[in-house]
Amino acid sequence: MVNLKFRTLEWKNDTLLLLDQRKLPNIVTDVACTTPEQTAEAIRNLTVRGAPAIGVAAAYGLLLAVDLSASGPQVLTDLEKAALLLGSARPTAVNLQWAVDRMMGIAAIYHDLNAADLREHLSEEAVAIHEEDMAMCRKIGEHGAPLLADGMTVLTHCNAGALATSGIGTALSVIYTAQAQRKRIKVYVDETRPVLQGARLTMWELMQQRIDATLITDSTAASLFGAGKIDAVIVGADRIAANGDVANKIGTYNVAVLAAHHGVPFYVAAPRSTFDKKIATGAEIPIEERSPAEVTGVGAARTAPTSAKVFSPAFDVTPHRLITAIVSDRGVQTGGR
Amino acid sequence: MVNLKFRTLEWKNDTLLLLDQRKLPNIVTDVACTTPEQTAEAIRNLTVRGAPAIGVAAAYGLLLAVDLSASGPQVLTDLEKAALLLGSARPTAVNLQWAVDRMMGIAAIYHDLNAADLREHLSEEAVAIHEEDMAMCRKIGEHGAPLLADGMTVLTHCNAGALATSGIGTALSVIYTAQAQRKRIKVYVDETRPVLQGARLTMWELMQQRIDATLITDSTAASLFGAGKIDAVIVGADRIAANGDVANKIGTYNVAVLAAHHGVPFYVAAPRSTFDKKIATGAEIPIEERSPAEVTGVGAARTAPTSAKVFSPAFDVTPHRLITAIVSDRGVQTGGR
Repeated sequence: MVNLKFRTLEWKNDTLLLLDQRKLPNIVTDVACTTPEQTAEAIRNLTVRGAPAIGVAAAYGLLLAVDLSASGPQVLTDLEKAALLLGSARPTAVNLQWAVDRMMGIAAIYHDLNAADLREHLSEEAVAIHEEDMAMCRKIGEHGAPLLADGMTVLTHCNAGALATSGIGTALSVIYTAQAQRKRIKVYVDETRPVLQGARLTMWELMQQRIDATLITDSTAASLFGAGKIDAVIVGADRIAANGDVANKIGTYNVAVLAAHHGVPFYVAAPRSTFDKKIATGAEIPIEERSPAEVTGVGAARTAPTSAKVFSPAFDVTPHRLITAIVSDRGVQTGGR
Repeated sequence: MVNLKFRTLEWKNDTLLLLDQRKLPNIVTDVACTTPEQTAEAIRNLTVRGAPAIGVAAAYGLLLAVDLSASGPQVLTDLEKAALLLGSARPTAVNLQWAVDRMMGIAAIYHDLNAADLREHLSEEAVAIHEEDMAMCRKIGEHGAPLLADGMTVLTHCNAGALATSGIGTALSVIYTAQAQRKRIKVYVDETRPVLQGARLTMWELMQQRIDATLITDSTAASLFGAGKIDAVIVGADRIAANGDVANKIGTYNVAVLAAHHGVPFYVAAPRSTFDKKIATGAEIPIEERSPAEVTGVGAARTAPTSAKVFSPAFDVTPHRLITAIVSDRGVQTGGR
């Protein structure tokens, strides 16, 4: 049983509390949302991020719309307006629109009920989405933990942790669950340039959970592999194609090549909802390009010529042949290595 | 013939002018040194860096000591004091002590001459060290340029450029020379965390030289290799063991593994003086560890928890078997791939 020392989001006193991830690791504070507009803005400005987490936040955002609405037919109009706003807060995450659609499906079924009863059904659905997400995280941990033995050292990239979900995470759930089974796991964390989710978020949450974590620059991982100091790699996934190719944060493919070269197992942990059967191979996955400013500077520090040409894809694709296994809430599926 | 648009250092009107590399790429300005103390401080605080460049700077620093000295036996005492100061300004670069020793050897031979004649001999020696360094750079370029064909795209890591020498660089000399031969070369530049020499220095000098340069985060290189967009890799070296293992800036080994995995040639460019025959293999090369603060923040921006454990080696070792060829001022030596 994993005991989290923090929570990414919470529904409390008819308010959605979000741990403000923009301020981590320096300041630990919540943002309270009492309107769907505030919730959409929090998703947009990355107060809350991670596909599973923003789906849950959007579901509660719709509940806030009902609470603010006048009774009668106005409720449905307000819900539809909020659904449009929340569903478009970020473009790529599949879970966001999926959660909004689930809530609006309930609204469509029960729209003839009085406002209090409709609210009750929507509240149940939001809580169900939240609880299913937490259960998904637990199951990934249970299926994945047997892959890690006592004393192992694991490398992870980006943040596929509790901060990306409403539960104990995906890739990091495997580590937390192994630790709860009294296995001593040491973790190296890639800082994950350019947005530094590893340094800012993964290091913070591993330290909260008292995991023995060490931060490295992304290209330091190679020498650790070379010295035989990495026993396994675990990362998350943004989308998995029908052939098992995995799109994930830029740099994941780099780690996969290193793992294969050094004979170290490479695991991907992701919920079922990440599998996109409509996409045949990784080559069809569209890769978002990010702003050059993320690479030419960090915070106020300018680190490259202003007019420098930059290539900054947000994701890369790891071919199925470099993946040892994919851990989902359904179980462990062997990869192509 | 490569025509440099800037110069890293210059001896002019009995003053040593150093391009201030701490301020690049934002401000282009010189620091003027008129005493050996100022020269040692400029080497220490990284106004000038790169093993070949700091050797040349130290030679001129000794000339400044003579110019400031009273005539008579006092000259030798002042020279010895300056030699101690300059030789210890930085610990690792072999060229620094080597240049100081060459100058002091001349002083030992001619110490009986009058001050003006001694000064003349020392001036000739400093200019010789400077000119030999420039010739070394040109020769590396001439030997290496045939490895690059018109239209090739090259990846480089860190800064092995004109800014690290008093001439046209080592790894970048190969690119500049190929361009001077009217070959169109495109370059991807690893930003090179944690100290970002690629973003700050290599991008700046490639842009000065009108090379088609694109900045990437270090872990983006993998997806470029995967897409077949890199035709060759060229990097510098800090030390080369007798068996051909190469120590260079952290992340070089990462690039070497990627190059081998994707069948792309991996070239190292370095002067003869980098070959250390006293060291049998790369395993014997001591690896300096850097301050955690370089990884937990950039400039004023803090990017990781304050108390985060950090592993930050400054160099890694690329085994000879992953190197296609080593280009030196003596010619091209086949590697182990």
